[in-house]
Amino acid sequence: MSRTIKFALAGGPGVLEFIDMEVPAPGPHEIRIRVKAIGINRADSMWRNDKYTERVRFPAGLGYDAAGIVDAVGKDVSDFAIGDAVSTVPAFSLNKYFTYGEVILAPDHAVVKHPDSLSFVEAASVWMMFLTAYGALVFDAQVQARDFVIIPAASSSVGLAAIQIANYAGATPIALTRTSDKTKRLREAGAAHVVATQEQDMVAEVMRITNGHGARLAFDPVGGADFPKLIAALTNQGIAYIYGALSEDDTPIPVLEMIRKMTTIKGYSIRLVTGDDARRKVAVEYVTKGLASGALRPIIDRIFKFDDMVNVHRYLENSGQFGKIVVTL
Amino acid sequence: MSRTIKFALAGGPGVLEFIDMEVPAPGPHEIRIRVKAIGINRADSMWRNDKYTERVRFPAGLGYDAAGIVDAVGKDVSDFAIGDAVSTVPAFSLNKYFTYGEVILAPDHAVVKHPDSLSFVEAASVWMMFLTAYGALVFDAQVQARDFVIIPAASSSVGLAAIQIANYAGATPIALTRTSDKTKRLREAGAAHVVATQEQDMVAEVMRITNGHGARLAFDPVGGADFPKLIAALTNQGIAYIYGALSEDDTPIPVLEMIRKMTTIKGYSIRLVTGDDARRKVAVEYVTKGLASGALRPIIDRIFKFDDMVNVHRYLENSGQFGKIVVTL
Repeated sequence: MSRTIKFALAGGPGVLEFIDMEVPAPGPHEIRIRVKAIGINRADSMWRNDKYTERVRFPAGLGYDAAGIVDAVGKDVSDFAIGDAVSTVPAFSLNKYFTYGEVILAPDHAVVKHPDSLSFVEAASVWMMFLTAYGALVFDAQVQARDFVIIPAASSSVGLAAIQIANYAGATPIALTRTSDKTKRLREAGAAHVVATQEQDMVAEVMRITNGHGARLAFDPVGGADFPKLIAALTNQGIAYIYGALSEDDTPIPVLEMIRKMTTIKGYSIRLVTGDDARRKVAVEYVTKGLASGALRPIIDRIFKFDDMVNVHRYLENSGQFGKIVVTL
Repeated sequence: MSRTIKFALAGGPGVLEFIDMEVPAPGPHEIRIRVKAIGINRADSMWRNDKYTERVRFPAGLGYDAAGIVDAVGKDVSDFAIGDAVSTVPAFSLNKYFTYGEVILAPDHAVVKHPDSLSFVEAASVWMMFLTAYGALVFDAQVQARDFVIIPAASSSVGLAAIQIANYAGATPIALTRTSDKTKRLREAGAAHVVATQEQDMVAEVMRITNGHGARLAFDPVGGADFPKLIAALTNQGIAYIYGALSEDDTPIPVLEMIRKMTTIKGYSIRLVTGDDARRKVAVEYVTKGLASGALRPIIDRIFKFDDMVNVHRYLENSGQFGKIVVTL
């Protein structure tokens, strides 16, 4: 029997239920994993509220990130054997697979052998954050040494991953945070510049940092009423990626300014790279290499126990984290 | 002496003044043209109001499109001689050059020999409209045979050019117009489909036309509160070009839908192709070839006299045109 978390209706953290279920033998191209650690993502909370990009089919499981030990392999699975230490990459529908369980199934295309140097906690923390940042900044924008990258919500796991990916590519990350409380930690995490948006004029700061040119890229999970400021802080033909809607306000765009500067806004999802076999392989190799070399490294906010998952979701939604929340089993 | 139109402060059509000025001999890489016809653009009205993408330096001239006869050529001008029939392409700043005059100067990079088959009125009508549509649909989006293209404000000169360019590339234009008054004329102008947005559910119609997939491209000069409907009518990884702000309302974007569909919005200006020598040459060749073959053809709404320019601007702003307004001298 596997203790597993499911939910039968959308709502707050209290809808999460612990159930005992029998996990079947893996089918063709499936792998069964005894889970050691689960990485918690903002997506899990949106999914639980049925406010994610895909609609929930109830009752549903949750979770994209996990690390553990291969327990059984299905037909046609090559490259993996019982006993392997593995982790999952978010390349599946949550209506089909999920990671909140003691024992889980995953499709083999979404299972990877992480670098030996990573603990299970670390391995459960890296894939969503680094692949998300990689897909926009490296795969799509081809970020380069002379580029500046504005990173709102920089203390989030994806924000911290974007700082590291920008540095890894030789570009200059500009981290945005609401107050200066986290400035020191963001600098330690690799942010060349930190702007406290409630204390400083963000656009003026970015212009100062970029010698009046503006940044080529912004990588934003927030949207809302301040979104036009991000556009104002971009250079000509800059690109603003928007990959979340943390602000629930309307997100207006400054049309004339966008025409003048020929600005691009891209709705972005990790599926751009995880939804395609060839792209996913290149992405996983890029991140694996960065992790193995130490250029990319996990940043763990706090570790909880699996039984505390309702509190984990409450903690997640208080938005005070710096890095990744991980749950151990 | 050349009778010329200038304005010394921003405002309504009444700010336009007729003055007599001496047009100097053309400088290096300049051409002097005796103007026969002037094409009128929405940009002229925005410029007159100082609501264009560039700020006006007063007193200023107006106008991007004109056709006439070469009157003198400056140093280092090759390819053009006195007596040539030529037209201007909008590849200059209105703070430096303009076309509202009996005799004008133009930089040689912005002067072309149009096909002999075109009258001066026709030649003065084609460049802004076709180069604008070409730059977004052909140069940037590489529109192809299987693509559907949504074209709001389809009766405008650029809208009609987009219909023709989409057809020329083998794609399927879907023209949007407010009421069905212009449906018949839009079909005659090449629109495979026409949707009257005040009478029909635009999104449902586009979905019906595209078998539920949505269109790959939208090419919008309007923006405003209905902009999210355009996004809703796009397919996955569709692109909405926005090249004008005819609506003065806020333009909100549907963030979660854009993430789900990985939608791109591009602020677009003709400068994307006219601002670069190599791109402009390819663009002019493409349009010239289309005009010469008859695949692309001018659509003239009404012809006025130069002395009527104040009324021309009033007429322009009533937005009732179907195609291009041209002024003759």
